[in-house]
Amino acid sequence: VSNLIKKLAELKELVEGAETRIIAVAAAEDQDIMDVVKAAGRSGMAQFILVGDGEKIKSLMNQNGIQEDLAKVIHVPGHKAAAEKVVELAKSGDCHAIMKGNLHTSIFLKAMLDKEKGVTKGGLLSQVSVYDKVYGEGLQLLTDCVMSITPTLEEKSDIIRNAVELAHKLGYEKPNVALLSAVEVINPKIPDTLDAAILSKMCDRGQIKGCVVDGPFALDNALSGEAAKHKGIQSPVAGNADIIVAPNLQVGNVLHKAIVYMAKKDVAAAIMGADVPVIATSRTDTVASKLLTMRLALYLART
Amino acid sequence: VSNLIKKLAELKELVEGAETRIIAVAAAEDQDIMDVVKAAGRSGMAQFILVGDGEKIKSLMNQNGIQEDLAKVIHVPGHKAAAEKVVELAKSGDCHAIMKGNLHTSIFLKAMLDKEKGVTKGGLLSQVSVYDKVYGEGLQLLTDCVMSITPTLEEKSDIIRNAVELAHKLGYEKPNVALLSAVEVINPKIPDTLDAAILSKMCDRGQIKGCVVDGPFALDNALSGEAAKHKGIQSPVAGNADIIVAPNLQVGNVLHKAIVYMAKKDVAAAIMGADVPVIATSRTDTVASKLLTMRLALYLART
Repeated sequence: VSNLIKKLAELKELVEGAETRIIAVAAAEDQDIMDVVKAAGRSGMAQFILVGDGEKIKSLMNQNGIQEDLAKVIHVPGHKAAAEKVVELAKSGDCHAIMKGNLHTSIFLKAMLDKEKGVTKGGLLSQVSVYDKVYGEGLQLLTDCVMSITPTLEEKSDIIRNAVELAHKLGYEKPNVALLSAVEVINPKIPDTLDAAILSKMCDRGQIKGCVVDGPFALDNALSGEAAKHKGIQSPVAGNADIIVAPNLQVGNVLHKAIVYMAKKDVAAAIMGADVPVIATSRTDTVASKLLTMRLALYLART
Repeated sequence: VSNLIKKLAELKELVEGAETRIIAVAAAEDQDIMDVVKAAGRSGMAQFILVGDGEKIKSLMNQNGIQEDLAKVIHVPGHKAAAEKVVELAKSGDCHAIMKGNLHTSIFLKAMLDKEKGVTKGGLLSQVSVYDKVYGEGLQLLTDCVMSITPTLEEKSDIIRNAVELAHKLGYEKPNVALLSAVEVINPKIPDTLDAAILSKMCDRGQIKGCVVDGPFALDNALSGEAAKHKGIQSPVAGNADIIVAPNLQVGNVLHKAIVYMAKKDVAAAIMGADVPVIATSRTDTVASKLLTMRLALYLART
């Protein structure tokens, strides 16, 4: 059993004994959502409000033997309206987390980002993957693998702040943040090495708080103390990264997928920067990883 | 034992029985090089010409118990001159492969790329990592993880051609080439998805030969047939990639390092595009992976 599963089981115990947590799903007319509801129902993890095409949802619930006490249905036709409804349920405190169903991510995000009715804190929304460290003990966070294609310096600092907030909630008092690139030296031909230097200094000057930021690092010297030593790198973060920050979406996405598909690790994912925990699993995620992601969101709903 | 090791052992048998292969090393005054020479000597894989600071090299050979019949020394002080000397040895047929020692990669490359005295074929030099497939049987190739920071379309087509040449030599008649991005759809905000579409069509039109090129793919749908099916992707390459082409150095480098440090796979690396096999291992590579890389180069020296 991975540390991630153990940690989230601990978190689950914290969650248990508390009032039941409710997850509102936008555009829930989808077999994948039914699989997750069934599995979450078996473990007593949560109850659901399924928003979307009421008739289709009820028909799918019947086919899957899902009872009304596990999942309440609200009929709101149209993806945009369904997304707005779950955001409204979060705002009014009628649910503890929101989840993307069978609708396009951009529609879901638009409802979240609405200036008046949305649920963002004003900064950037960003995604964080959580998995067992390969070197050393505990969990490692990787960000952003889903949301920002080519983040600006300002957006990168928001991405770091969001991941640090999650690390704090997972028990890291002062997480080590490694800014990833292809190399560990400054190279003006690789602009993200310049961003890494600047972000490191922003942390030194207290503009990014509650963590130690250093970079650029190549992946090997962020992960492995031995690899860092070979390169003569002096840094508390080298070989000891709690948070890995990808320079752009391509790198984050490929690294996330290499961890899942090549290193075969359990991965949970969180979307940070909103007032409410957000669950946005991918169709290709396993049911197991969808449940880990949900468990993480339910824990965050408590903290 | 990995398929990579088995395959290279087969290749080694092909190499054995032939005349001894000679590797010329530029700036060989380095303990890492001595470790490789000793290990290669034990397996009878090759003999060496060690070019560089003669006195330092001989002193290190003494300390390491390396005999003159395994490694001949040529005193050429200065990194630039040492690099030029090994390239000259390759040109004159006095060695079968060349290797980078303790000098900066750019100096080594400059000697190789010299228009008159160099050893390139006129196209781009590019790096290819070789490792066991995670899904399916056989070897997978990943390129470029070392050389080109942000390749142009033209350079990407050279990178593909170089990798296809290596795949042919490793027994793939018509390798499947997957062009990697963060997504499998065309997105004008992600320019490498546009390049992927264009390169696919270049293959359709016979401008890139001896392979099937398709992209863009996210890593999961390049690797796993199931993930590709989830996304409804119709392609002979999806889930069945023999060669993965990274859109830029950051992605290639991080993915290579994730395969080594997170998926913990044996990886050999080749530099393609030169008239002679080139060995350029990194200080942080294990001796085992340095030997795999050398074995691959010795095999290529035969073909």
